[in-house]
Amino acid sequence: MEDHIFKLEMKVRDYECDLQGVVNNSVYQNYLEHTRHEYLKSIKIDFADLTERGIILMVKRVEIDYQRPLKSGDKFVSVLRMERISPLRFGFVQSIYRLPDEKLMIKALVIGTSVNKRGRPELPEELIKIWGLE
Amino acid sequence: MEDHIFKLEMKVRDYECDLQGVVNNSVYQNYLEHTRHEYLKSIKIDFADLTERGIILMVKRVEIDYQRPLKSGDKFVSVLRMERISPLRFGFVQSIYRLPDEKLMIKALVIGTSVNKRGRPELPEELIKIWGLE
Amino acid sequence: MEDHIFKLEMKVRDYECDLQGVVNNSVYQNYLEHTRHEYLKSIKIDFADLTERGIILMVKRVEIDYQRPLKSGDKFVSVLRMERISPLRFGFVQSIYRLPDEKLMIKALVIGTSVNKRGRPELPEELIKIWGLE
Amino acid sequence: MEDHIFKLEMKVRDYECDLQGVVNNSVYQNYLEHTRHEYLKSIKIDFADLTERGIILMVKRVEIDYQRPLKSGDKFVSVLRMERISPLRFGFVQSIYRLPDEKLMIKALVIGTSVNKRGRPELPEELIKIWGLE
Repeated sequence: MEDHIFKLEMKVRDYECDLQGVVNNSVYQNYLEHTRHEYLKSIKIDFADLTERGIILMVKRVEIDYQRPLKSGDKFVSVLRMERISPLRFGFVQSIYRLPDEKLMIKALVIGTSVNKRGRPELPEELIKIWGLE
Repeated sequence: MEDHIFKLEMKVRDYECDLQGVVNNSVYQNYLEHTRHEYLKSIKIDFADLTERGIILMVKRVEIDYQRPLKSGDKFVSVLRMERISPLRFGFVQSIYRLPDEKLMIKALVIGTSVNKRGRPELPEELIKIWGLE
Repeated sequence: MEDHIFKLEMKVRDYECDLQGVVNNSVYQNYLEHTRHEYLKSIKIDFADLTERGIILMVKRVEIDYQRPLKSGDKFVSVLRMERISPLRFGFVQSIYRLPDEKLMIKALVIGTSVNKRGRPELPEELIKIWGLE
Repeated sequence: MEDHIFKLEMKVRDYECDLQGVVNNSVYQNYLEHTRHEYLKSIKIDFADLTERGIILMVKRVEIDYQRPLKSGDKFVSVLRMERISPLRFGFVQSIYRLPDEKLMIKALVIGTSVNKRGRPELPEELIKIWGLE
């Protein structure tokens, strides 16, 4: 399993599986989002709280490579690390590994930015401090 | 609106919107998938039927660029065209435009392949014929 | 098909189907909610707008009888009528029929109420006027 | 917290919240289903496995009373007990309590039955043995 600064263990729920008997492709975005938000909370950044303050963290681009499908009952671990993309853009490098065999299921790059109430790009101070994005 | 071979009009449903008051990022994958499946049906390829025959159309990679968010009540059109990626891979070039102003909301490239019951890559004849993928 | 004051035609999307190859039970609540919100818009009540004004329409109770399952590709019509439950509670009597054979798929009773910013029950004037709930 | 034979702790994920900032009503059905399936696995009944064997456990009726809404970040426990409804119907009596204050969020009665490949009611032996439904 690659380097990461945060990980979260989860388990497939049957309602997340589709006609093909595997987790539907769109559900991985739910897993990835939940992992990012839990990571942000772990560094004291609350997504719902930011939203109330008028700061919108936005996803600008998502790239997902699907390697193997998760199935009903599978346990997995979702890991994350940060990558600087540009002064106003930050990248979450994310992967999901099945447990216990640690096979890679998907890997993803999620590029985000942040806008204020007037729709202007503005990174919250907390993020600048933590990620060193200046 | 760019060139396309298929289009589908839809409307945002409130349960698809999240805390930020906009359509959740993962929901666009639902829109994109529904568009692909409706397109496949329109050329007489039934996704559920293929699944029963043991042929699995699989998404290998998704790239989505988020330009503007859809909101509660928005109508939109989801358009699609095909692009050859490699002998065993086909690409769906997809975009979603808000209606009636036709502003681009997202654009996506979804790369798919097809495997048979033994997990081997095998494109169904129908697809080869239609897309000229040989 | 029974008496109704509003109807909405929809079509099953493959991602709404689960391991059993039918629409997942929880998805019917999405269909029912979307029908209610579209009905409310049709009588000029905007759910997202009410939410912004601090008036929360809340579901207090849901009863759903599942008769037959919808499957991939099925078209259906979702119908609705109102029923007075009590001074502060209103009932949506809802059913979903498959098309074109009009077989009953589910029927439901959804009981709602409305609270203001202080969490107190308060029906918006529009609703009192329209539904004669006084 | 009432009597129960099974409980499962979970946490709200932000994508489960809607425009109103609370968990969308339909999502509770996901929580309830996941709890039932995990309970069935805990007594060695695998829902996906039954489906493959042609035995379909079906929900016939759902009643949910919504007491208080779960919000972003809330932890909760979902509890379950069985109730005999009739020779061919079994009831899951389910509740969800917020943690750590154990306030009741929803309570539900989910009535199920079971059919075989020919669509006839047939309870799998495992269930008859475990639940004493004869």
